[in-house]
Amino acid sequence: MKSVYIYDTTLRDGTQGEGFQLSGLDKLRIAERLDAFGVDYIEGGWPGSNPKDVEFFREAKKLKLKHAKLAAFGSTRRANVKVEEDPQVRLLLEAETPVVTIFGKSWELHVTDILRTTVEENQAMIRETVAHLVKNGREVVYDAEHFFDGYKDGAGHALATLKAAAEGGASCLVLCDTNGGTLPAEVEEICAAVRRHLPDTPMGIHTHNDCELAVANAISAVRAGATQVQGTINGYGERTGNCNLTSVMPILQLKMGIEVVPRMEELRALSHFVDDISNNPHFARAAFIGRTAFAHKGGMHVNAVQKLARSYEHIVPASVGNEQTILVSELSGQSNILLKAEQMGMPLAKGAPEAAAILTKVKELENEGYSFEAAGGSLELLIRRELGNYTKPFESTEYHTSFRQYRDGHKPVCEATVKVSVNNEIELTVAEGNGVVNALDIALRKALLPFYPEIAEVALVDYKVRILDGHDATAAKTRVLIVSAHGGETWGTVGVSDNIIEASWLALVDGIDLFLQRKS
Amino acid sequence: MKSVYIYDTTLRDGTQGEGFQLSGLDKLRIAERLDAFGVDYIEGGWPGSNPKDVEFFREAKKLKLKHAKLAAFGSTRRANVKVEEDPQVRLLLEAETPVVTIFGKSWELHVTDILRTTVEENQAMIRETVAHLVKNGREVVYDAEHFFDGYKDGAGHALATLKAAAEGGASCLVLCDTNGGTLPAEVEEICAAVRRHLPDTPMGIHTHNDCELAVANAISAVRAGATQVQGTINGYGERTGNCNLTSVMPILQLKMGIEVVPRMEELRALSHFVDDISNNPHFARAAFIGRTAFAHKGGMHVNAVQKLARSYEHIVPASVGNEQTILVSELSGQSNILLKAEQMGMPLAKGAPEAAAILTKVKELENEGYSFEAAGGSLELLIRRELGNYTKPFESTEYHTSFRQYRDGHKPVCEATVKVSVNNEIELTVAEGNGVVNALDIALRKALLPFYPEIAEVALVDYKVRILDGHDATAAKTRVLIVSAHGGETWGTVGVSDNIIEASWLALVDGIDLFLQRKS
Repeated sequence: MKSVYIYDTTLRDGTQGEGFQLSGLDKLRIAERLDAFGVDYIEGGWPGSNPKDVEFFREAKKLKLKHAKLAAFGSTRRANVKVEEDPQVRLLLEAETPVVTIFGKSWELHVTDILRTTVEENQAMIRETVAHLVKNGREVVYDAEHFFDGYKDGAGHALATLKAAAEGGASCLVLCDTNGGTLPAEVEEICAAVRRHLPDTPMGIHTHNDCELAVANAISAVRAGATQVQGTINGYGERTGNCNLTSVMPILQLKMGIEVVPRMEELRALSHFVDDISNNPHFARAAFIGRTAFAHKGGMHVNAVQKLARSYEHIVPASVGNEQTILVSELSGQSNILLKAEQMGMPLAKGAPEAAAILTKVKELENEGYSFEAAGGSLELLIRRELGNYTKPFESTEYHTSFRQYRDGHKPVCEATVKVSVNNEIELTVAEGNGVVNALDIALRKALLPFYPEIAEVALVDYKVRILDGHDATAAKTRVLIVSAHGGETWGTVGVSDNIIEASWLALVDGIDLFLQRKS
Repeated sequence: MKSVYIYDTTLRDGTQGEGFQLSGLDKLRIAERLDAFGVDYIEGGWPGSNPKDVEFFREAKKLKLKHAKLAAFGSTRRANVKVEEDPQVRLLLEAETPVVTIFGKSWELHVTDILRTTVEENQAMIRETVAHLVKNGREVVYDAEHFFDGYKDGAGHALATLKAAAEGGASCLVLCDTNGGTLPAEVEEICAAVRRHLPDTPMGIHTHNDCELAVANAISAVRAGATQVQGTINGYGERTGNCNLTSVMPILQLKMGIEVVPRMEELRALSHFVDDISNNPHFARAAFIGRTAFAHKGGMHVNAVQKLARSYEHIVPASVGNEQTILVSELSGQSNILLKAEQMGMPLAKGAPEAAAILTKVKELENEGYSFEAAGGSLELLIRRELGNYTKPFESTEYHTSFRQYRDGHKPVCEATVKVSVNNEIELTVAEGNGVVNALDIALRKALLPFYPEIAEVALVDYKVRILDGHDATAAKTRVLIVSAHGGETWGTVGVSDNIIEASWLALVDGIDLFLQRKS
């Protein structure tokens, strides 16, 4: 049995953060990835707060999670309402998740001044809601909102709310530092007191980063007996964010000897995946997985690191999928390439010159702004080309797009022309579309369809744009990520250019090219 | 007498960080600002490592610091050299600073494997270098490099190096977690042991953020008796950075009751000053001083914050120069609108019909894909229009963009034409640009400049694109966020459309429109 469980709330509390928005499809893809990485719980959303989250749980039933349990989040029943009749509680059950997490008020101030009810009714709301969900077969996690502030203001009331949840049958009592203002020593002391008071129900911890102490506070709670740690990937969340799982997981596993996930070496890839999906830039200075986390600048340090890595490195970078950036770790970089080639059915020997050539090419493209984390399709094309397992299916020689917007009621006109050649036959097509990229996509397919009728079944299912360097604003580099689908299969491709149309074109062409390679 | 002294090393250890570079003039300006803010020590550089730092100390003599003491940083004498004859030590004295900070090796592994000398000689190097600097009238701070790793590897050797520094006359023994791998409980335990062993010399702490624990570790050391805290503004520094003074100072002063600086309310301005000088973007999620540190998004939170600010705020934002921000989002209600209107100087009564009308309009636009969280400028325009406080500065009747890409070496051609009318005068302009949006921006300004010459000073500083719904891919809605700037002021605007060019155009127009509204 695990001694600490990881509870991810990227999809719920993470999306409370400014600039961290996810579509329904984004949330499903992240849930699958979190499951593959090995977290124990995935909180998917709050069905009672918006219809998008209701829709997410409907779609999520089709996910085949291997390990993680999906949790729906919500609140206790309202005051003076029967729990069976509370519509928000009903939506929680309709989400049909194995786990339901509900939060309740542990700070008396909130009960009297915000909720405006009595402490007795508040405790009944907690006890009855938990019991109702348990009776309906759910594992119930209880989030004690503002627990630490509440405890400091009046320990008796705060503990009574936990007791109500335990009596209702909660499987875990999670102490929340909702405002993020508590210091680590206080967290440790209060958590220890809770363990003494309620030794029979497991305890969890949910912290926020308002004092830059969310990770430290989570660790303090684990030292005092917490067995569930809640947080988000890359620390996304309201205000300054939630406890950063990307830091707390390696601390627990690599420093405190508490095994929490099976493949910690995929941590950096997971972190980048969430950044890419949510269209956020990677934070270079992030602990463990940041680009500069093992970058040595001082000449003396570099020298020492070369003599003895642990002289200036607190862990082996590869243990979290990172690498030292002075001594470019050929082995860790290459091993990803070897794995990918093997997955593609083109296994390469360790140290093969082709692997080195591929790695060099990848590094070059990354310097230009490419990112292959969410673009496995483009990486596959690159590997195929280097291994000579590639036939160019078409040449594109020219394209043109035009967009005209009127303000007098005319609909805007958007047009693309594409010129391609296949086996020296030239095809020139024109199409109108809803936006220039859509027009380009249609014109390109129209041109290729006579040669490759099977591409009629390929669909473009996601399109993401990232401006890579804010300094020059609209003149900066643009990266476009596209997801294409055929049958149940999806693949990502990437294009980078000074302008968005060319970047989109490169990603579009790769998307179709890869499909044709795999068919041939 | 103060019980904890703040030692800033932004100008030395901070500049070891990637992307944090300062000219000599930058360093002088930051030193003056740090002094005005009230830190106790300013480490200016390492004269022995480069001639730029020698030059800095020459110029720094002209600074009239009111409170802070300037420190020159360097190392102990080399092995088997007389301290009087060591050129690096001579440069430290030639810097003519009241304080000199030297580092020495506390980890036996470094003495034997990196420095390749004996432990006895290492201790002599420390003792003699400190004594020589003290004899020359300097206050000497001793940085014990790798102290925690060294202590865990062999406490006897680590403590002997501290004793050597104390015997030489060091005024403070600073324990350094050089690799950033130590956990808070270890820091507290080891610091307490050092206090017991060497109770007569003050102890300091220098931490790094490799585990996202630098701030927590500094606090642990203070709890165990440290009276000097070293760090950098905004946490800049090698790898993942140094202890963030911008977080640790308010924790000490506002939460632990230890007065460290006289004007904490200038903290946010100091943080922005250092970002601006070093040309780095502000980290929105930073604790205490970040843009979103007191930003509330969930409608329930917003409602509670208005009833009682401390219900969701761990400190008074103004105490660090920050302010409450209400993010208007799909999760929010009328209370967000009322607060925003008040901040704009157009207060609305609760329940006013205008407020209801604005909220309806906001919800309609949100359903279309708008988001006003980072687009306060567009929200202000909407509120102005609803309140009748708006005059349309120009009409745009038509625009056209064209993009042609060749594959035979030609450069791509990107062109925009714009037709606007101001007071029935029609202006038609054309411009080429690096990308269609850049071309549109240039053409629009060119058209308006004859009427509004002041827009020459408005700059487009950030541009972000988000595809709103992955399902229809390129035919899906696009949201564009633009940040414009004039003088020190910035404002965000938003546009949503089926296609990216029209969405960009709407955001561009709003950006200029808002500027003209505020001018008129």
